[in-house]
Amino acid sequence: MDAFVCLACGPVDDRDPFSPFCHGCREPLFMAPTGRPGRRAIREHAESALERFLEFLPLSSIDRKLSLGEGNTPLLSLNCLGPKTGLSAVFAKNEAQNPTGSFKDRGTALAVQKAVASGFKRIGTVSTGNMAASTAAYGARAGLETFVLLKEGTSAAAVQASGIYGPHLITVDGDYGTLFHRSLEIGKRLGISFMNSIDPFRMEGYKVTGYEIFLQLGRRAPRFILVPLSSGGHLLGLMRAFEDLEREGMIPVFPTFVGVQAQGCSPLVRAFEAGRPTYERLKETRTIAHAISNPAPPAGNAVLRVIRARAGRLIAVSDEEMLEAQRELSVGEGLFCQPESATTLAALKKLAGSGVVGPADEAVLVLTGNGLKTPQAIGPSPFRTRRMSLANLESELRCLLPSKM
Amino acid sequence: MDAFVCLACGPVDDRDPFSPFCHGCREPLFMAPTGRPGRRAIREHAESALERFLEFLPLSSIDRKLSLGEGNTPLLSLNCLGPKTGLSAVFAKNEAQNPTGSFKDRGTALAVQKAVASGFKRIGTVSTGNMAASTAAYGARAGLETFVLLKEGTSAAAVQASGIYGPHLITVDGDYGTLFHRSLEIGKRLGISFMNSIDPFRMEGYKVTGYEIFLQLGRRAPRFILVPLSSGGHLLGLMRAFEDLEREGMIPVFPTFVGVQAQGCSPLVRAFEAGRPTYERLKETRTIAHAISNPAPPAGNAVLRVIRARAGRLIAVSDEEMLEAQRELSVGEGLFCQPESATTLAALKKLAGSGVVGPADEAVLVLTGNGLKTPQAIGPSPFRTRRMSLANLESELRCLLPSKM
Repeated sequence: MDAFVCLACGPVDDRDPFSPFCHGCREPLFMAPTGRPGRRAIREHAESALERFLEFLPLSSIDRKLSLGEGNTPLLSLNCLGPKTGLSAVFAKNEAQNPTGSFKDRGTALAVQKAVASGFKRIGTVSTGNMAASTAAYGARAGLETFVLLKEGTSAAAVQASGIYGPHLITVDGDYGTLFHRSLEIGKRLGISFMNSIDPFRMEGYKVTGYEIFLQLGRRAPRFILVPLSSGGHLLGLMRAFEDLEREGMIPVFPTFVGVQAQGCSPLVRAFEAGRPTYERLKETRTIAHAISNPAPPAGNAVLRVIRARAGRLIAVSDEEMLEAQRELSVGEGLFCQPESATTLAALKKLAGSGVVGPADEAVLVLTGNGLKTPQAIGPSPFRTRRMSLANLESELRCLLPSKM
Repeated sequence: MDAFVCLACGPVDDRDPFSPFCHGCREPLFMAPTGRPGRRAIREHAESALERFLEFLPLSSIDRKLSLGEGNTPLLSLNCLGPKTGLSAVFAKNEAQNPTGSFKDRGTALAVQKAVASGFKRIGTVSTGNMAASTAAYGARAGLETFVLLKEGTSAAAVQASGIYGPHLITVDGDYGTLFHRSLEIGKRLGISFMNSIDPFRMEGYKVTGYEIFLQLGRRAPRFILVPLSSGGHLLGLMRAFEDLEREGMIPVFPTFVGVQAQGCSPLVRAFEAGRPTYERLKETRTIAHAISNPAPPAGNAVLRVIRARAGRLIAVSDEEMLEAQRELSVGEGLFCQPESATTLAALKKLAGSGVVGPADEAVLVLTGNGLKTPQAIGPSPFRTRRMSLANLESELRCLLPSKM
């Protein structure tokens, strides 16, 4: 029997299985940790990421048939960019290597395990991008009828990236924030398990990324963890991973989490900086970072609460800053991520510039999605291509080299 | 000191480090296995794929700073499509989850380890797609000056996918087959280590995929392994992995390898079917499968030799068959791969139809690249999108469901 908790109201006994919200205060629900602290073990040599951390997850077993091989993503030391920030070490957790190219797969994987175990034959999501493709892929893998509700004006690339898996693709006219809540009500009546951005099981899946970082660093937590911030589900899931590790006595100090928004859509950063406990919904957004352009993050107030309680930070970066950081990660480290992911490097540079982080610190950047998914963000053709003939290739190449050749 | 061998001429003592060919017969060179058989061990709990199989590779140690986290890709049981083929089990080895989305990363990773250890400051490749992006990414990671030689008419998407890493991008007018050989000569004079498709170190990197399949199946070989076939380097690398395992006494029976070409560019299948020891270069190719559209595969004759010696097979599939298989892998299993990768499923269906494989058999399909890399192969917009209004969403969704709802 799963136990849920609301950060504002405490334990919740009578959760509506179709709603991720507390029926009292409308804040998001989380899985309550169960069992006696200090008794949960990591199965280090399990091949699958979910199996490795099974004792920390709300699953009694894993149905491998539903997995696409999510997780086990690399943690890479940034040997070129790290030293430039002045920190002692900077790492990238490359979530782009998940099955559909984004961190969403970790949450979808867990939510689908739960949906199938609960007898659902239909799943759905409300998304314009990464979550749509992820849910469609896992729905196909599990043989479930899948409903993907898209915003009007979703790009052809995004339609293709989820359409390829054969879901019902439905463009919905009307307010996108309202659609989030309406989908849950409709799901309840039509027997569709909607696994939206802050579904509590989805957030449990994101915890696994945190456990992996802990293991990959040699069983310790980094000083800082930076993660792009949209609905809030990913950040909250990662934070709960380190709360689990803290509860188990595995880490002595809780890491400082930094949630990063785009300047053109930063309702949570505004509330954080103004010291307000709740955010104000934005009327207008203006950023190329569509994957984190959420004017009314459903877990926004929970993020404000938890980030303050844990002495974390929220920070915004401009489109120019994230595109520059995207280019730096590619050219400097060989990592091609979405601009949304690169917000983490842009934010780290700001924190280093203002002295918040320094030579004694170590940071992990969570790169959330693959740059191949958003080719349009780079622009049509910013790369210089030289034309050479086969006959003159050697002499022309020689001209590119330093004169000592 | 690395030892090389030519499959036709035997051990080669005086290898030109800038040429992957035997100077006698112009066939490709391979690394000779060294050490006493039966003494090499797999380090099962190493995190990095190269470190896990270090004793099987021509490296004395791994420089982690050069790695992008290649390998450790999932082997997934195809629970929907497998039973339809009539085999006892069908698996997909999903190489799309490598850092730049293709199997090429495994070979590039090893070749870059070697290039850096040998003191090179410059690397290069001749490619129109996956290998260009892979080499550019690893060159960026290693801080090497990287030269990517492209064919005229390379798509904007392919230029972007490697250009993002900041290499020298050079479009070369003239014959592409000649360019392959010319690049090696020029590299020798300009100090550029060209790691082209059949570079012996690159092929050593591909061996790791074979070792992983062996481990993931519980320390045994599958009966059949199907892999797309272009230059021949990938297939030959995979076969050498199982030769290593055989030499170490780890597998009692050698698997049957099936190389798959596109019907519109199948010089090796033609030679195989005609019983000829060498292939004839094609004048014209006609297929959507650009990544395996090679009219003069540089390791083509070696492939014919080894496939015959090991009772393997070569088979061709049409563009329609591979696109259908691509769609089946997406809709049936949640795996979105390049059409080139889907040739393996198309070929397996043919082999099942003709009785070559049957209920007692088990096959592994090597899915070589991520479908996100070739969106144009699917066509502009083949996916049906329904439009619904928020107000009528529930009633309209209900119409999609079976009447019992």
